[in-house]
Amino acid sequence: MAAKITPRDKDYSQWYVDIVLQARLADYSPVKGCMVIRPRGYALWERIREVLDSKFKATGHSNAYFPLLIPESFIHKEAEHIEGFSPELAVVTHAGGEELEEPLVLRPTSETIIWAMYKKWIQSYRDLPILINQWANVIRWEKRTRLFLRTTEFLWQEGHTAHETEAEALEETLKILDLYRDFVENYMAIPVLTGRKSEQEKFAGAVSTYAIEAMMQDRRALQAGTSHFLGQNFAKAFDVTYQTKNGDLDHVWATSWGVSTRLIGALIMTHSDDKGLVVPPKLASIEAVIIPIFKNETRTAVLAYAEDIQKGLDGVKVELDDDDQNSPGWKFAEWEMLGVPVRIEIGPRDMASGKAVVVRRDTGEKAIVSKDEVTDTVKRLLVEIQANLYDRAKLFQTENTHEIGDYDAFKKLFGGAGEGAGGFAVSYWCGDAACETRIKDETKATIRVLREEDGSGTCVACGRKSRGTAVFAKAY
Amino acid sequence: MAAKITPRDKDYSQWYVDIVLQARLADYSPVKGCMVIRPRGYALWERIREVLDSKFKATGHSNAYFPLLIPESFIHKEAEHIEGFSPELAVVTHAGGEELEEPLVLRPTSETIIWAMYKKWIQSYRDLPILINQWANVIRWEKRTRLFLRTTEFLWQEGHTAHETEAEALEETLKILDLYRDFVENYMAIPVLTGRKSEQEKFAGAVSTYAIEAMMQDRRALQAGTSHFLGQNFAKAFDVTYQTKNGDLDHVWATSWGVSTRLIGALIMTHSDDKGLVVPPKLASIEAVIIPIFKNETRTAVLAYAEDIQKGLDGVKVELDDDDQNSPGWKFAEWEMLGVPVRIEIGPRDMASGKAVVVRRDTGEKAIVSKDEVTDTVKRLLVEIQANLYDRAKLFQTENTHEIGDYDAFKKLFGGAGEGAGGFAVSYWCGDAACETRIKDETKATIRVLREEDGSGTCVACGRKSRGTAVFAKAY
Repeated sequence: MAAKITPRDKDYSQWYVDIVLQARLADYSPVKGCMVIRPRGYALWERIREVLDSKFKATGHSNAYFPLLIPESFIHKEAEHIEGFSPELAVVTHAGGEELEEPLVLRPTSETIIWAMYKKWIQSYRDLPILINQWANVIRWEKRTRLFLRTTEFLWQEGHTAHETEAEALEETLKILDLYRDFVENYMAIPVLTGRKSEQEKFAGAVSTYAIEAMMQDRRALQAGTSHFLGQNFAKAFDVTYQTKNGDLDHVWATSWGVSTRLIGALIMTHSDDKGLVVPPKLASIEAVIIPIFKNETRTAVLAYAEDIQKGLDGVKVELDDDDQNSPGWKFAEWEMLGVPVRIEIGPRDMASGKAVVVRRDTGEKAIVSKDEVTDTVKRLLVEIQANLYDRAKLFQTENTHEIGDYDAFKKLFGGAGEGAGGFAVSYWCGDAACETRIKDETKATIRVLREEDGSGTCVACGRKSRGTAVFAKAY
Repeated sequence: MAAKITPRDKDYSQWYVDIVLQARLADYSPVKGCMVIRPRGYALWERIREVLDSKFKATGHSNAYFPLLIPESFIHKEAEHIEGFSPELAVVTHAGGEELEEPLVLRPTSETIIWAMYKKWIQSYRDLPILINQWANVIRWEKRTRLFLRTTEFLWQEGHTAHETEAEALEETLKILDLYRDFVENYMAIPVLTGRKSEQEKFAGAVSTYAIEAMMQDRRALQAGTSHFLGQNFAKAFDVTYQTKNGDLDHVWATSWGVSTRLIGALIMTHSDDKGLVVPPKLASIEAVIIPIFKNETRTAVLAYAEDIQKGLDGVKVELDDDDQNSPGWKFAEWEMLGVPVRIEIGPRDMASGKAVVVRRDTGEKAIVSKDEVTDTVKRLLVEIQANLYDRAKLFQTENTHEIGDYDAFKKLFGGAGEGAGGFAVSYWCGDAACETRIKDETKATIRVLREEDGSGTCVACGRKSRGTAVFAKAY
């Protein structure tokens, strides 16, 4: 029998871990906090990587590779950067049998090593813009880790761009934010809010950080990607100047941006159910599975019929599960658990009547269609499932987003001891970090994005005049 | 003016470094021995990766990702493995502000961490074979480094497979060796010898190592890829057993295999010349460049004509260099230095006569063709250049491969102090490590591959009876 997934309403955290392990997406490794990404999980990352990479290239970016090892002194050059990252650093002190003169840190992010190189490569406006992306592993020593969501080592892409003007760098920051939103919504079927972060929540070393924020099924927020406007902070820390068109010298303007294997966690927590993983068709490496139902005497004929249907499924990534050892019922549960969008069941009776049973993973809905209709039906369903997953998640997000002006109602939503329903609270905030901290201390909710476009109101915590709201949530 | 490349016959090593730096393939980083792979170099790696990855998948392999950090004790579990790798390890001793209980090494290769996981995943013959590949960075603390050829950190792929039987594992080892040979010869246009390594030269922990070996333009050998038959060594070290079809317990049989960014070094040293890089068309991200020749008054018309030709070059990766600041002569030299296979020159006179000048990068040969013939000519030349690069390198390898039975002649070839011509010496070898060591000490030549198929003869060093020859060379 297929392994059992803990139901969400019994233990949400265990449900998530069960899916990751039983769908063989990842496994715990012998090194605390580091995971192994297994082939089924890595296939999701390859697909994410493939689509994003083509979008980066279509917008003029090139890939490059910078060293994993960064001299410890580099991390100290930008004051906020070291403050943010120093608790998370892993340090190489010995190599080749000797103690190193200067310890090397494993990159937690690559701004410092990259800006040390940009200093060599940038002299004049003719060298700008530089639009470079890197696909790499990074290390951040985390105290509490969760598979995909927060791991000591993770895979990501990090873009690092250099521009002549502030306006160009800001434009790049927002262009990438929208590229992320477009990808996560239209491929991963995850609706997101976009917006700027508060000073407390921004990237260590940025002037401003923009993020895409998704809502998981436990109503917590998950930051799914960030795009940072770095101003001239790193250019000044690494003394990177360029000769302008007018012949002046000026510091370069910069951005950096990234998404990581955390996106796989977001995908699981957005769409999956108590039967297991649900994969949006546009990310699926297997879009449909055919499960023939046979006994010894019908085996050959049913398999021939199934192979015929498989051949007809032109342009669909389809797998035929002709394994003899497991029962059809076991296979149904197994492939549901693995999240394959469409299941095609074929038994002797279906064969006799020239039909097949087509089952949607998202709703469980079954349809009996004639053999000739299978391909069109599957193709139509893949489109419908992709749309339905997005719509369902969007509805859930909308239903769990509340405009709240009253602090008691706000506290009740998040429940002091965690018994509140949670969700997104859209509330006016005065902009004072003291109020932000008080709210965090009293409710564990943090500011996910600012909504400056929401006009004036009064701060939910202190009642002072506020320009724009903030979206608050408990977050991963 | 374009920067100058040191001629090969003046200083071969400097010639290589000049090409890497001036073609902007890579740059030195602030960390000793680690390089930065710049976009033009990384594009070559992406192309290598793309082709190999599709070949791995077509032969049933899946990608996965295992942790960078390996507990130090794991490396010690296989006796030969630790002996081979311990001098090269980089060690993390501190992380998250604390000293670690057990130091973690940065993977020099991933057998140990992977076999620790295979122990969890393998119980029965139903779990086999496991055919996993990983694209990753690895760290080997090297004393003497050279861009691409030997760097402290490099990028590679490492396949790690587990099988029921010795025969299956051996078949996999040789299948991958042939996959490497096919790729390197037919895409990179680099002819290679294939064969088994001697005991001294094999991978630390393997039963036997097979390699592809190429000859560089200085007649030195470069090991371009290896495929290892690991026997049951790692299965025993990590106690990985499986239940056989008969119900017995047996240790699993294994292989591992890899190629790295070193291939880019092989590509440069095989094909390039004193004008710069030469890229085989099948690896080129720009296959042809159009350089318009104009003055202010002819600019618009020539550019329109050039764009027209560009549009006609359907299916060819072509770039139009319409930069106004550099002269045509400068551009010719620059694009030659960057290695683009075909150059198309278009001046006012060509335009007036409805023609274009097409120039091959490999031979420098020029042809004047009518506008209508440009596309066919370029496509034909790309095929011819690919073949010519291979043939030229193959001829060079053949001319510099010598069957040598006399030890004086052998020593003369390699020249005690380095003044010998070098190349590949095919000589009988008795199989005694003492002779191998003596030859290495006296000539710096090592055994690159064994040729057991060459029958019997007498050892070039000691005159004893030998079964099969060995190919000796000085190596990178």
